Amino acid sequence: MVVSDSTVAALHGPLALRSLRRSGVAAELVTVPHGERSKSLRHLERLWAIFAELGLDRGGAVVALGGGVVGDLAGFAAATWLRGVPWVCVPTTVLAQVDSSIGGKTAVDLPHGKNLVGAFHQPAGVLVDPAILGTLPDRQLRAGLAEAVKTGMAVDGPLFLWLERHVERLLAGSPEALGEAVTRSLRAKARVVRADEREGGRRAALNYGHTLGHALEAAGGYRGLLHGEAVAIGMRVAAGLSVRFAGLPPAARRRQDALLDSLRLPGRIPGTPLAKLLDAMSRDKKRRDGKIRWVLTPRMGHASVPRLISARWVEAALIEAGARA
Amino acid sequence: MVVSDSTVAALHGPLALRSLRRSGVAAELVTVPHGERSKSLRHLERLWAIFAELGLDRGGAVVALGGGVVGDLAGFAAATWLRGVPWVCVPTTVLAQVDSSIGGKTAVDLPHGKNLVGAFHQPAGVLVDPAILGTLPDRQLRAGLAEAVKTGMAVDGPLFLWLERHVERLLAGSPEALGEAVTRSLRAKARVVRADEREGGRRAALNYGHTLGHALEAAGGYRGLLHGEAVAIGMRVAAGLSVRFAGLPPAARRRQDALLDSLRLPGRIPGTPLAKLLDAMSRDKKRRDGKIRWVLTPRMGHASVPRLISARWVEAALIEAGARA
Repeated sequence: MVVSDSTVAALHGPLALRSLRRSGVAAELVTVPHGERSKSLRHLERLWAIFAELGLDRGGAVVALGGGVVGDLAGFAAATWLRGVPWVCVPTTVLAQVDSSIGGKTAVDLPHGKNLVGAFHQPAGVLVDPAILGTLPDRQLRAGLAEAVKTGMAVDGPLFLWLERHVERLLAGSPEALGEAVTRSLRAKARVVRADEREGGRRAALNYGHTLGHALEAAGGYRGLLHGEAVAIGMRVAAGLSVRFAGLPPAARRRQDALLDSLRLPGRIPGTPLAKLLDAMSRDKKRRDGKIRWVLTPRMGHASVPRLISARWVEAALIEAGARA
Repeated sequence: MVVSDSTVAALHGPLALRSLRRSGVAAELVTVPHGERSKSLRHLERLWAIFAELGLDRGGAVVALGGGVVGDLAGFAAATWLRGVPWVCVPTTVLAQVDSSIGGKTAVDLPHGKNLVGAFHQPAGVLVDPAILGTLPDRQLRAGLAEAVKTGMAVDGPLFLWLERHVERLLAGSPEALGEAVTRSLRAKARVVRADEREGGRRAALNYGHTLGHALEAAGGYRGLLHGEAVAIGMRVAAGLSVRFAGLPPAARRRQDALLDSLRLPGRIPGTPLAKLLDAMSRDKKRRDGKIRWVLTPRMGHASVPRLISARWVEAALIEAGARA
């Protein structure tokens, strides 16, 4: 079962089916609409029903052909179908190639929040072809690179320096530069996930920028900012809190923000009401015992396990970053 | 979050809540209607929404207080909530105590078939109190013992002999006899599951009687036979096929059927249309590459991995057992 979204299926669906069938695999294509709103229970149930109708059995497998949304949805459908069938991830966006294709996190959203229902289900394989990125809109390419910047800031200082040096080639869409950014990011992430698959400790560092990032997406009903754009804003606020509470040198914060600026990623919260953001944060998985957790970083490439930050500092930082009081 | 069904909650819910709260645990009770039809996506979604509304976070846990239906539903909700929170299984039926509480299988049903969507998610603990069985209707008690007979036939010959010797005390509801039947069955099952958690090999032996059992339940819309009753019929047919195809001595088949008779478990298919049974079997997880698999046993306590049996023999056996041609 090849699961894709309408946009990607139009570009790459026929080739994927042809390639599988030529290898002797009976393959069928099922598509969901493009966009985060497909990570819903409604589309999950539709996939399960199609799996049942087409008789996907334990000898079968799911191929997720698309970006992070398709990977999360199809991966979770595979995790739960017949208590788990294998899946293969074929990421077609920068975001999915540099980040979400590795690590085995799958999930769908509820009206109450993002990724609330899901599973850890490692793909049997990940097939990354940077050449596919040529079909990607420029805005998506830049948003995807935000996760590479995050990986650098959180766990891999040398990756951050590499991105700084090659930002112009990346923006020009150089396949070699994109390929190397993807490879370096995936290596860094795989190293962290291997040591802490279930996010009991160090893997949580990769949530740098995501406390606010998820809240911005939820507050916008998953229709405004792209995930990478929301994470970019989240990293800016997280870096500010890191300077204040974790001893991050102000110069490191400025370098992060300058790199995000070079990638033309948003600098400020787009007037989202403060109350909406706080509400979304309190529903997120990052809450525990009713408090909100932030991943901070004392220096580049060394983000720490989450810290609890008091509400008044978070509010001040959000308003400074553009939230509507 | 204590998840229970309306019947069990009325009997044991207040005690469970009181006991947890006395231990300093903030506990809430949520109930689903009694019966297999609660293993549905509708009730699963309701649980997820309640978890969200009550703020069940990663420091929380789910307690499944009830029979197999509650364990399957609440266990799967726990497996998928925030990508997995711990759960504790408190089985209140013989069926759940002797069988489903151990092994980590969780699932819900789809209109297309039973247990099609689920996960392997081992409970953090299983609390079995045979004294609770005193509140169980006689029919449920007898149906539950069918799974103990199955465990004996499939993987533990001495358990089968023990059940034969103590069937009168079991039928009289002796707490000591029930306690021992439960302990012996769980030990046997735990031994098998420990060696093969994901059912790649030997664990499949525990599906003895279930190819037809599941089909009978599905064909009856989960409203007619109890699970254990359906499995009892399934074992009779599986034993017949085992005599023909796996070399089970006819005397062993007769002893199995006599023990099931002593437990006053049904002997024949209640006139279910043959086509309905075949259709349900072809949708079940036991199908692979379009063929139907049966667990057979060459001798007591030594069921084998599933075997493919040709349709005409299956049809003949089903009609002989009472299916309507």
